[in-house]
Amino acid sequence: MTAKIISNRKSLSPEQLENGDIFAPKFDNAGLIMAIASDASSNEILMVAYMNEEALKLSLQSGIVHYYSRSRSALWKKGETSGEIQKLVEMRTDCDQDVLLLKVEQVGRGAACHTGRKSCFYRQIVTENGAIALKTDSTPRVFDPDKVYKK
Amino acid sequence: MTAKIISNRKSLSPEQLENGDIFAPKFDNAGLIMAIASDASSNEILMVAYMNEEALKLSLQSGIVHYYSRSRSALWKKGETSGEIQKLVEMRTDCDQDVLLLKVEQVGRGAACHTGRKSCFYRQIVTENGAIALKTDSTPRVFDPDKVYKK
Repeated sequence: MTAKIISNRKSLSPEQLENGDIFAPKFDNAGLIMAIASDASSNEILMVAYMNEEALKLSLQSGIVHYYSRSRSALWKKGETSGEIQKLVEMRTDCDQDVLLLKVEQVGRGAACHTGRKSCFYRQIVTENGAIALKTDSTPRVFDPDKVYKK
Repeated sequence: MTAKIISNRKSLSPEQLENGDIFAPKFDNAGLIMAIASDASSNEILMVAYMNEEALKLSLQSGIVHYYSRSRSALWKKGETSGEIQKLVEMRTDCDQDVLLLKVEQVGRGAACHTGRKSCFYRQIVTENGAIALKTDSTPRVFDPDKVYKK
C-alpha cells in the first residue's frame, strides 16, 4: 500500500482542515508531529512521542507503531529493544490536525515507558502549603530498565 | 498560595528528573509546555493546548484550567468566551517532565473543542485502497460554534 499523506495544508481552507475528510497533518519545522499513545481499552494515556512522515506511514501500513526519536535522530520502532511493541488499533487527529492520537494495544510486558512503567505519567503534581512537588504512584514497575536496556 | 515552579532543570540529574519529587517542567524556547486535557471520569482525551508558567501556576492555584493561546499570544482562561470551563481534578507530568496531563471535569455544555464537540479528536484516520482519509464521528456537536463565538 502506498500511503499518500498530504502535506500541503496551504491549499486547504480552515473549514476544510477542521471539518473535511482530507488528512493534512501539520508537521513542525523539524518535520515532526506529536503523537499521544493511549491504551485502546482503558483510554489511559501511555506516552507522548513524535512521528515524521515516514514513521506515520509505516505505522498506518504495518499496524505497528513507529515514532521518530529526536535524541537519536532516527526512525524508532517502539519496542525494538525492549519488546514493548505497540499495536495500532486506531489513529485520530484533532481539529487543526497538528496532533495525532493513537489508540494502541501495548504488548510485551505492558510497559510503554522506558522507566519500566505502564505509563510515562506516573507522577502527580501536588501542592502543599504553597509548595509544588511530585508524588510518584505506588504501582510497581513492570520491568527493570537497567536489565532491559543493559546499561 | 505562592506556587513555586522550578525552571532550572540543569541542576538536576536525569535520575532526579525522572524519579525525583522535584517539579521541573521543561518549557520550550517560547516558554511553553504542552498540556493534554482528558476527561477525569472516562480518560477520554479532550484537547491539547499549551501553558506558560503563569497559566500553569494559575491552574494549580485556582483549580480552573488556564492555557496560553499561541494565536492570540495571551493567557487563555478556557471557557471564558464559550462557558466551557475546565475544573482541574488532577495534574500529572511524564518521565522527562516536558508534557503535562490534566484530568479535568469539563463543565458548561461539555464541549472542549471550539468546533462545538466534546473532544477535538472527532476524526479517525482511515486507510482504504492505499488512500488515507479522515472519517468524522457521527456524534452530533454539543453547540453551534457560529452562535457561541458570534462570528
